[in-house]
Amino acid sequence: MGEKSEQKKQFIVDTARQVFVEKGFRDVTMKDIVDACGISRGGLYLYFDSTAALFREVLEAQQMEKDDIFTGEIPEEATATDILLVFLKEQKKEILLRKNSLAVAAYEYFFANKPAKKDNLLRRRFLQAVEILTGLIEAGVESGEFICEDPQGAAQNIMFVLEGLRVCSQTMGLSESRLDSELLYLMKDLVYEEL
Amino acid sequence: MGEKSEQKKQFIVDTARQVFVEKGFRDVTMKDIVDACGISRGGLYLYFDSTAALFREVLEAQQMEKDDIFTGEIPEEATATDILLVFLKEQKKEILLRKNSLAVAAYEYFFANKPAKKDNLLRRRFLQAVEILTGLIEAGVESGEFICEDPQGAAQNIMFVLEGLRVCSQTMGLSESRLDSELLYLMKDLVYEEL
Repeated sequence: MGEKSEQKKQFIVDTARQVFVEKGFRDVTMKDIVDACGISRGGLYLYFDSTAALFREVLEAQQMEKDDIFTGEIPEEATATDILLVFLKEQKKEILLRKNSLAVAAYEYFFANKPAKKDNLLRRRFLQAVEILTGLIEAGVESGEFICEDPQGAAQNIMFVLEGLRVCSQTMGLSESRLDSELLYLMKDLVYEEL
Repeated sequence: MGEKSEQKKQFIVDTARQVFVEKGFRDVTMKDIVDACGISRGGLYLYFDSTAALFREVLEAQQMEKDDIFTGEIPEEATATDILLVFLKEQKKEILLRKNSLAVAAYEYFFANKPAKKDNLLRRRFLQAVEILTGLIEAGVESGEFICEDPQGAAQNIMFVLEGLRVCSQTMGLSESRLDSELLYLMKDLVYEEL
C-alpha cells in the first residue's frame, strides 16, 4: 500500500473510532462511516468490506497504542512496584473515561461474534497481559518488593478484576473512590504492610 | 391482583425470560413476547407496557431465586468455608451456563439504560452481595477459618472478579479449568495453607 493509501486508511480508522465510541458497534452502518469520513462508498470499500473488519482494525490500533505504555515510557531504574502502579493508573484512566471509550462497542462486537477461541482479540490480549504481569510480579518477588506464592494466579486475578471494573463502570456505574479502593486492594495483596 | 392474574403474569415473565435468553434485550419486541406467550397484544399490555418493564421483572424474579440460595438450603452447622464454597459453586454454575443465561440481555439492557445510580438493580444487587460476603468473611475470621485483614475489601474483590469472569465468559470464552483456577485463587487468598 502506498503512503497516501496508508494515510487514508489511517484517517478512516481514526474517524471510525469516534463513531464506534459514540454509537457502539451494532448501530453503526457503513453509511455512518462514509458520512463521518466525507468519502465515497467505493472509497471506503477499497479498504474495508464491513463494519466488523473496520472495528477489528480500530481495536488493533488501540492495542498497539497500549503496548507502547509497556515498552516506551518506562525508565530503566523503575522498580516492579513503579511499573505496576503505572499500569494500574493507566487502567484506571481508561475505566473512568467511560464516555469516550470503545468498551461498549467492544462488548457489543464480541457478544455478537461469539467467542471464536482462535484469533479472539480480547482473549489474545488478556493472555498477553497475564503473561506480562506474571513476569512483572516475578521480578518484584525476586527484588523483594512483592510477596506472592503464585505470580501467575495473581496476574490472572488482576486481569479478571480489571474486566469486572470495566464492565461494572458501564452497567452500574463506578465511583472513583470505589475504583481506587479496589486497585489499592490489589496492590496491598502483593506488598502487604508496605502500602 | 387476583390469583388468576398473578398466574398469568408469572406465565408471561417465565416465557419472556426464555425469549431474552435467546435474543438478548435489544432485539426483543413486544410482538416477540405476544407470539411466545400466545396471548393478545392487549393481554400483554395489561401487565407490562414495555420490554424494559418486563425485563426488569424477569431480573427481579431471578434475583429472588438467587436469594433463596443464601437463606434456604444452608444447614445450621455449615461453616463459613462451606457457605463460601456453596456460593462460589453457584456462581460457577451460572457462569458456565453461558448459553442459557440472561447475562448478555442484562448487559444490553444496562448499556442502553445507562447507570442510573438510584434504583439500578445491578448496583443494588452488587452492594447487597458485598455486604453478605463481608459478614460471611468476618464470621470466618472469627471462627479461625479465614485470615483476612480487610473483609469488606476482600468481599468487594470477590464480586469484581465474578463480574470479570461473567463478562469474559461471554466475550472471549472461559474454560472450566481457568474458571476453577481463579475461584481457587480467591479461596486460597482467604484460607492460605489450608487448601
